[in-house]
Amino acid sequence: MRPVIVVHGGAGRIFKEREEGCRTGVVRAALRGYGVLKPGGSALDAVEEAVRSMEDDPHFNAGCGSVLNEKGEVEMDAIIMDGKNLASGAVSAVKCIANPIKLARLVMEKTKHMLLTDHGAQLFAQAMGVPEIPGEKLVTERSRERWKKNLEPDSNPVEFQNKSFVTDGWVGSPSALAYQFEIRDLGTVGAVAIDSEGNVACATSTGGLSNKLVGRVGDTACIGSGGYADNCSGATSTTGHGESIMKVVLARLILYHMEQGMSPEMAADTALEYMKTRVGGLGGVIVVSSSGEWAARFSTKQMSWATVKDDELHYGIYAGERHTKSVAEALASESEGL
Amino acid sequence: MRPVIVVHGGAGRIFKEREEGCRTGVVRAALRGYGVLKPGGSALDAVEEAVRSMEDDPHFNAGCGSVLNEKGEVEMDAIIMDGKNLASGAVSAVKCIANPIKLARLVMEKTKHMLLTDHGAQLFAQAMGVPEIPGEKLVTERSRERWKKNLEPDSNPVEFQNKSFVTDGWVGSPSALAYQFEIRDLGTVGAVAIDSEGNVACATSTGGLSNKLVGRVGDTACIGSGGYADNCSGATSTTGHGESIMKVVLARLILYHMEQGMSPEMAADTALEYMKTRVGGLGGVIVVSSSGEWAARFSTKQMSWATVKDDELHYGIYAGERHTKSVAEALASESEGL
Repeated sequence: MRPVIVVHGGAGRIFKEREEGCRTGVVRAALRGYGVLKPGGSALDAVEEAVRSMEDDPHFNAGCGSVLNEKGEVEMDAIIMDGKNLASGAVSAVKCIANPIKLARLVMEKTKHMLLTDHGAQLFAQAMGVPEIPGEKLVTERSRERWKKNLEPDSNPVEFQNKSFVTDGWVGSPSALAYQFEIRDLGTVGAVAIDSEGNVACATSTGGLSNKLVGRVGDTACIGSGGYADNCSGATSTTGHGESIMKVVLARLILYHMEQGMSPEMAADTALEYMKTRVGGLGGVIVVSSSGEWAARFSTKQMSWATVKDDELHYGIYAGERHTKSVAEALASESEGL
Repeated sequence: MRPVIVVHGGAGRIFKEREEGCRTGVVRAALRGYGVLKPGGSALDAVEEAVRSMEDDPHFNAGCGSVLNEKGEVEMDAIIMDGKNLASGAVSAVKCIANPIKLARLVMEKTKHMLLTDHGAQLFAQAMGVPEIPGEKLVTERSRERWKKNLEPDSNPVEFQNKSFVTDGWVGSPSALAYQFEIRDLGTVGAVAIDSEGNVACATSTGGLSNKLVGRVGDTACIGSGGYADNCSGATSTTGHGESIMKVVLARLILYHMEQGMSPEMAADTALEYMKTRVGGLGGVIVVSSSGEWAARFSTKQMSWATVKDDELHYGIYAGERHTKSVAEALASESEGL
């Protein structure tokens, strides 16, 4: 099997000034992941490496660069899954660690559980010797400004017209309703891969929604929603409006469609269309099949993505945008950039 | 549509001395739920009422009666889902509240999120005016004894032979590995219903696994695993080995099978068989279809279940056991029992 990696840096609206950083970030992540796969490394190691690279990149809403909750804190969710045996590890609402995806992998490999949350995840990180870092180290100027802006009473006047807020007495800052009307610059990150042995894996990591309630867990930590991997069909990682993704259990839905004979592209489009029509949600997905076919599809305006297969790199942000380079050329321009 | 309710009080091994209490508890829960449905109440109200009744019953591992984590505390997960619009609310790792299922419903109805965890769920409960109760009020003598027994170094000698514990340095009390070898007296509770308008709903609530790591979240809080409801196909609530249920996203899997034309019974059996062969997990499920067909199936030794349809009550614990009574007769013996 010729190895393949696909990564995404989040679906939504990507502001102009962030486009170049996102392109560079997803390309770097895909190259890093392919660097693991090419000499025979595992899909699991490749997706972890790719996601870790984007967690460390402040352009994305994961690890450093995560958006802030209503209290101005970073709370992150992450999941990793091994398509060989359906083993998975996840963490939700974790703070003060640089790489939630590494902690998720430790949950998978060092416990008999699959999901650890909040305080318990923190205790586990300590027991595993994962260094605790000051929460502020994960906070970028951009995240803080956005959080502050969302706190302003007139930040999103349209949300105040939201019926359920007025009639049901919704709890939390009204601006957190923003995503109902516009999928913003979300920036969740993810990766899927197939290795030379035919094993598939997925990984997803996120800071969630800006100004979310404390303790809000989205699709990312939920197996079948934020990601799913099964050697019998393929692997997928999702991004977009978390609550809509959960309602349709999006990742598992895509693989069901593939089990019924659809290509990754058709399965992705069918599932995204269903999410749009059934629950009004937008998002994006990356998919790799057990035969090495791949897709990067989205119903939002943009999604940053990159893939490497057969030593060829492809990447883009807008629908229809697709740049192609050889891996050698891409690696050369990467090292020039450093 | 003639309304139907099905409830379960958990799959696993039900100790002899607990059998009668479980039978009585699931019958009471089914009657309460049916009491909501019969005069035209909603499926959502019915499943909440049925689950709340079992959370208040110390015979079950949910609410009062929940098992304890490694630190001797109760940490509970719950989910509720509305098949009409796929809306759902869930809480994970919540402490010190009597009815997690009510809090899950508040998450669904009063926030734009779907899952709140741990500290954030507690803050939300406070904001909603949900009374905080001392954690000890949820702890039964049985739960505490079981927890203590699991802490004894020789409590489950077989677990010490677990290879991954020895070689990988597994974190946590070794006795928490017990479920790998024997599905114990788990006692998660759940309900599914269809109301006179043809709306389906599901609800599941649990204290999780005895002596689990702090912050362990199981299948119950994960949409698609612990439960799923969709008016287009039906509703299901699951119980059993949580981590296995999550690996196969069991609830959603059952409804996929029904979407492909299988009956609730065949869908349940096919999915449970898949979970056993693919990941070695045992469990049980209750299902109601959008046409009002129902099933209560399990791969464990026992599962307490009860259902009411057409004013007739059915209930049982062992495979093949099925008692039948009219609702009038059952209500009469219930009030005698009080």
